[in-house]
Amino acid sequence: MKTAINKSLLGMEFLSIQEIENILKTASEFKQQKKELLPTSKLLAGKRVINLFMEPSTRTRIAFEIATKSLGADAISILGDASSLTKGETLEDTAKNVKALGADAIVIRHSSPGSPLLLSNMVELPIINAGDGAHEHPSQALLDIFTLRENLGNINGKHITILGDILFSRVARSNLWGLSRLGAKVTLAGPSTLLPDEFAKLGVRISHNLEDAVAGADAIMLLRIQHERQQASHFPSLSEYSKIFGLNPIIEQKMKKEAIILHPGPLNRGAEIDTKLADSDRSVILDQVANGIFVRMAILYNSMK
Amino acid sequence: MKTAINKSLLGMEFLSIQEIENILKTASEFKQQKKELLPTSKLLAGKRVINLFMEPSTRTRIAFEIATKSLGADAISILGDASSLTKGETLEDTAKNVKALGADAIVIRHSSPGSPLLLSNMVELPIINAGDGAHEHPSQALLDIFTLRENLGNINGKHITILGDILFSRVARSNLWGLSRLGAKVTLAGPSTLLPDEFAKLGVRISHNLEDAVAGADAIMLLRIQHERQQASHFPSLSEYSKIFGLNPIIEQKMKKEAIILHPGPLNRGAEIDTKLADSDRSVILDQVANGIFVRMAILYNSMK
Amino acid sequence: MKTAINKSLLGMEFLSIQEIENILKTASEFKQQKKELLPTSKLLAGKRVINLFMEPSTRTRIAFEIATKSLGADAISILGDASSLTKGETLEDTAKNVKALGADAIVIRHSSPGSPLLLSNMVELPIINAGDGAHEHPSQALLDIFTLRENLGNINGKHITILGDILFSRVARSNLWGLSRLGAKVTLAGPSTLLPDEFAKLGVRISHNLEDAVAGADAIMLLRIQHERQQASHFPSLSEYSKIFGLNPIIEQKMKKEAIILHPGPLNRGAEIDTKLADSDRSVILDQVANGIFVRMAILYNSMK
Repeated sequence: MKTAINKSLLGMEFLSIQEIENILKTASEFKQQKKELLPTSKLLAGKRVINLFMEPSTRTRIAFEIATKSLGADAISILGDASSLTKGETLEDTAKNVKALGADAIVIRHSSPGSPLLLSNMVELPIINAGDGAHEHPSQALLDIFTLRENLGNINGKHITILGDILFSRVARSNLWGLSRLGAKVTLAGPSTLLPDEFAKLGVRISHNLEDAVAGADAIMLLRIQHERQQASHFPSLSEYSKIFGLNPIIEQKMKKEAIILHPGPLNRGAEIDTKLADSDRSVILDQVANGIFVRMAILYNSMK
Repeated sequence: MKTAINKSLLGMEFLSIQEIENILKTASEFKQQKKELLPTSKLLAGKRVINLFMEPSTRTRIAFEIATKSLGADAISILGDASSLTKGETLEDTAKNVKALGADAIVIRHSSPGSPLLLSNMVELPIINAGDGAHEHPSQALLDIFTLRENLGNINGKHITILGDILFSRVARSNLWGLSRLGAKVTLAGPSTLLPDEFAKLGVRISHNLEDAVAGADAIMLLRIQHERQQASHFPSLSEYSKIFGLNPIIEQKMKKEAIILHPGPLNRGAEIDTKLADSDRSVILDQVANGIFVRMAILYNSMK
Repeated sequence: MKTAINKSLLGMEFLSIQEIENILKTASEFKQQKKELLPTSKLLAGKRVINLFMEPSTRTRIAFEIATKSLGADAISILGDASSLTKGETLEDTAKNVKALGADAIVIRHSSPGSPLLLSNMVELPIINAGDGAHEHPSQALLDIFTLRENLGNINGKHITILGDILFSRVARSNLWGLSRLGAKVTLAGPSTLLPDEFAKLGVRISHNLEDAVAGADAIMLLRIQHERQQASHFPSLSEYSKIFGLNPIIEQKMKKEAIILHPGPLNRGAEIDTKLADSDRSVILDQVANGIFVRMAILYNSMK
């Protein structure tokens, strides 16, 4: 039997190739069962998953809730900031309370990098990282990789460009770990203010030129420009960014004929991507959303079966 | 097989008599089954209904959630305004994301008139209008009509007075379409500031006199005076309104002996209705609430069966 | 058949010894069934519990939701303050609407003392008090008593000290009623600003000295110091309180060897309790949380079976 920490999903950094393959294989089976209308809905009957979202999130939380219910487990969501939920309580106490409430797994979103890892050492329960600050967002990376493989087949040796706000992106960080582990050749691209040169130390290619970054790529993973998080100092204006780093039909001519486009959502049409490209056959953005359910079902199932 | 748009409920304006009758008949069967403790709870097992409430609403949302669960389907509610939910995303993208999450139907409340119709052309899913601005609120009208028929029998030829804030009321608008379609004789009544004369063009009787409006009516449908929405300009004060257009025991003497009173809730006791009348045998207000569950079950069932 | 009011849980003040024993016995059976993995999950299938939380609460609400789902019933939570939920509606109308929505029981949290009792006279449904102002919080007292008995056996004649903000605490009030009814010897302890001498009229021992209060006690029930509720006037500062009335290893030497410590959560480590004591073998704080599910299942089951 695996220990609680082995049943946790703390970050892509900690997953072996075999563990990634296991999750993707289970997700694939769930997707197939859905197509064949086979019932998956009793696999985790009687289990209780508590979503502990200390930072606001609608999309990821809803996806985990749907995945939980699809397996027949009860989904309980606790949303809150310090004032309403914890009233000064430590995170460890909150998590121990959640365990005492009968949780069989905790899905946690928290603004502090490393908090899921911290928790996994304190509470004897599978801990699923649903985003910890600018650190990791492993369920997003797994659904991205699942979608890449649906379209590209084996991604070993494939060229994947991650484009945008690399510096602040947990999505970029998790994908970087996961894609590298599976042998993909990763290019990070963006303005130097959002992509400092020290990222080159991670053994990936760095590009500050959009044409250069998309040429030869089998897939381009866009990141969302987060107006709300950034200071004006990182680039002059959104339209400035869009002009230099936005994907549009002109830059598309430099892309490989079969190259696909991913985006974690929500889309800023006209900012990081032109609306024509967002709706083109290259876009697998809605496939990512749909696959996100099956991948999260697999994550939960592997943690609690 | 019906197309998605035919399985949608966009507004009473678009429903044929036959479609109205189908929903009411199904609702009636669900109510009967509840009475006989027959299980309805597996009819939509495995289905997923996503409530997309872009405008706050507790009552309507809860009623749809209960109706969904009563049929054995999963109810997922996404609440939010632009900032928290969509982060600048278009409504079309939000709806396509909801579909990708595996929704089998979308129940939408939105401040923009016509947004459900718009969505039904963009997304291949049944769209249920749970209120679109001051335009329509068809599930409310259907539960009102269901309740009218429980009490009056066939409403063809019956006199129904809708009284209050007609101008801003989606409830009035939906009932006007539905009642007219079924052959009822509708009187709209209220102060001229809330009921401009141009409403006469709709082929209904207009009255600015309360005595006149209630005399001869088989049912009086009150609308809620929405303090929060209105500007002072529409009437001098709430007590002014209440004095001239509030239902009270004195005006009750002008009502037909069997006439009933409806109200969509929440009640402003002492404003649009005197507390004695609200609690009298004429009031079918709580029946409306109870019937609302069965009618919404019928709407959901007809959309997804 | 019991009447609705007899199936309600309004406060510990109104419970006979037999009624307390019944709830504790059922809770104990549910806990045993959980241990043996016996399914309790169909006992209230088809029932609908509506949580009406007019005052914010995460912990108690979540615990009631989990308890409800564990019995197979549907849990619907209505959260809100006057503006969003009731729009000026009376509490009676709100409750009658909730009944019309098909509720089989109402769990209510409200800032007004006595509101659950009021409701139980107005609405033909079991009313479960989940906290009414500074009046009562009976489900908390029942889970406290359940936990005391797990550790102390019969509590008749046992010495229990309740320590802290007695004046504003519904937890203290409910425990006082319940413990006295079961024959325990209760000491109330705290600074005189939070524990006026008139409490002595209730027939319990009053102490303003910590050493005196813990000596001879079989259990010490801490209350949470509620920074947010209190005015500065009740004690000079939190560290002042902590120094004089906080449980710490020094004062622990005055405690009986087997004495246990309870706390309703969330913990203010370093304020009302030193972190070493909170994590010591004396602490049954997490047992309280876990028992809270079984006790609330018992409360709901006894109200609706």
